[in-house]
Amino acid sequence: MEKPYVHGYDQQESIRLQDQANTLVELLHGDTAYTENATVLEAGCGVGAQTITLARNSPKAIITSIDISESSIAQARKTIKAAGLHNVSFQQGNIFHLDFAPQSFDHVFLCFVLEHLVEPDEALKNLKRLLKPGGTITAIEGDHGSAYFYPDSAFARHAIQCQIDLQAKAGGNALIGRTLYPLLRKAGFEDVRVSPRMVYVDSSKPELVDGFTKNTFTAMVEGIRKEALEEQLISENDFDQGIADLHRTTEIDGVFCYTFFKAVGVK
Amino acid sequence: MEKPYVHGYDQQESIRLQDQANTLVELLHGDTAYTENATVLEAGCGVGAQTITLARNSPKAIITSIDISESSIAQARKTIKAAGLHNVSFQQGNIFHLDFAPQSFDHVFLCFVLEHLVEPDEALKNLKRLLKPGGTITAIEGDHGSAYFYPDSAFARHAIQCQIDLQAKAGGNALIGRTLYPLLRKAGFEDVRVSPRMVYVDSSKPELVDGFTKNTFTAMVEGIRKEALEEQLISENDFDQGIADLHRTTEIDGVFCYTFFKAVGVK
Repeated sequence: MEKPYVHGYDQQESIRLQDQANTLVELLHGDTAYTENATVLEAGCGVGAQTITLARNSPKAIITSIDISESSIAQARKTIKAAGLHNVSFQQGNIFHLDFAPQSFDHVFLCFVLEHLVEPDEALKNLKRLLKPGGTITAIEGDHGSAYFYPDSAFARHAIQCQIDLQAKAGGNALIGRTLYPLLRKAGFEDVRVSPRMVYVDSSKPELVDGFTKNTFTAMVEGIRKEALEEQLISENDFDQGIADLHRTTEIDGVFCYTFFKAVGVK
Repeated sequence: MEKPYVHGYDQQESIRLQDQANTLVELLHGDTAYTENATVLEAGCGVGAQTITLARNSPKAIITSIDISESSIAQARKTIKAAGLHNVSFQQGNIFHLDFAPQSFDHVFLCFVLEHLVEPDEALKNLKRLLKPGGTITAIEGDHGSAYFYPDSAFARHAIQCQIDLQAKAGGNALIGRTLYPLLRKAGFEDVRVSPRMVYVDSSKPELVDGFTKNTFTAMVEGIRKEALEEQLISENDFDQGIADLHRTTEIDGVFCYTFFKAVGVK
């Protein structure tokens, strides 16, 4: 059911995901805290970039984090151990074929997972079965169509579009953030509330200029250069101009905007 | 210096601006309140759609509201009188040639004005001269490049682009929201802080589905139909499909996003 991620699992990607989580921790995770003994399933933990915050913010919850990739799980285990956290157990598993009993969990948490799935609605229905009645699901996703900037640049927009197209080709959806409300509703969740989390960056916020515009978003687009050129989605010159123009938005008069979406629903 | 507004001054436009202000009042104006006896210049008050909130939120401030259009001023006067507000005086004036003495005001306020000006940076410099040292400027602007929605639609995006193109042709900038930080900095303001105000609409918020997506944003795009067709920016079928697709985002599974930007700077 799952196709390979566009983002990949290589070292640099791990660092990027980690940087992203550290920079955006408060924005994305600040209002997620589970109570003592609450059982939480983190579906698609990857290398543990979000797990570490989840575990820190809910130190007395009992967290189970799964991922389809054994190597990611191994790295996530190391990360959590190094952070001195003890409330997470990891296991390899496919989100579409998990061997937990129905109604095993009080809460489900997903961050940057649905965007990669061919059938995010099926994934949500499967996860809903694992929730106790009254349990919650929390899903956080980006949306690359929410990126705009000053100075504007058709090259930069084209380079970003390559990322969107490659992710679509792999069966994912880089524009999924805006669809969380209908997705959760379609999967049968009630009381669905979506909260956009906009990252607004200008030069009065140097930590976001580096941490988000340069090292998270632009680094991600740069990361698909080879694939975009191989697929002939863009010329080499246009792509490189696009990346240069994204960097241009990090100068003193530049502005960069991006929005994540956080949805909570109840079973 | 000023060219005619794309939005125009007709009756329906007045209603739209009024609807917009009523729907978005809290989001845009909630954190603007001036103290007793503070002198405030509202530059470009139009028909008073924002003036009424400004005057209500700062009942003891002394507000002077100007606009280039005599007929708009007349309507604004009526609106403020009908609301029982007495802390606003109106006068006709061109933002580029105001006959106030330098350092006449404690604060300057502009809402949906800079987007229409050929030289917003010159306007800001002129307004800065009217501020006392330590006085503040507050500017609120939209950004049509911040509009995205589900279901996505190339027709809807094209129709919106027509509005952007027509406003640019008239000398304005419908993408000005994202540029407030560099604009205010360039005009010499200090401590510039920009706060994005995102309007996120899904069917759990019926008041915004009607008040914003339908009656504000889509109504605005519908309003440029004649001009867009005359200028041959789009075919009739494509434009109408675009409007239909914008309405489609107001259905039960639809989502609509738009962001306003609010900037405050100090002289």
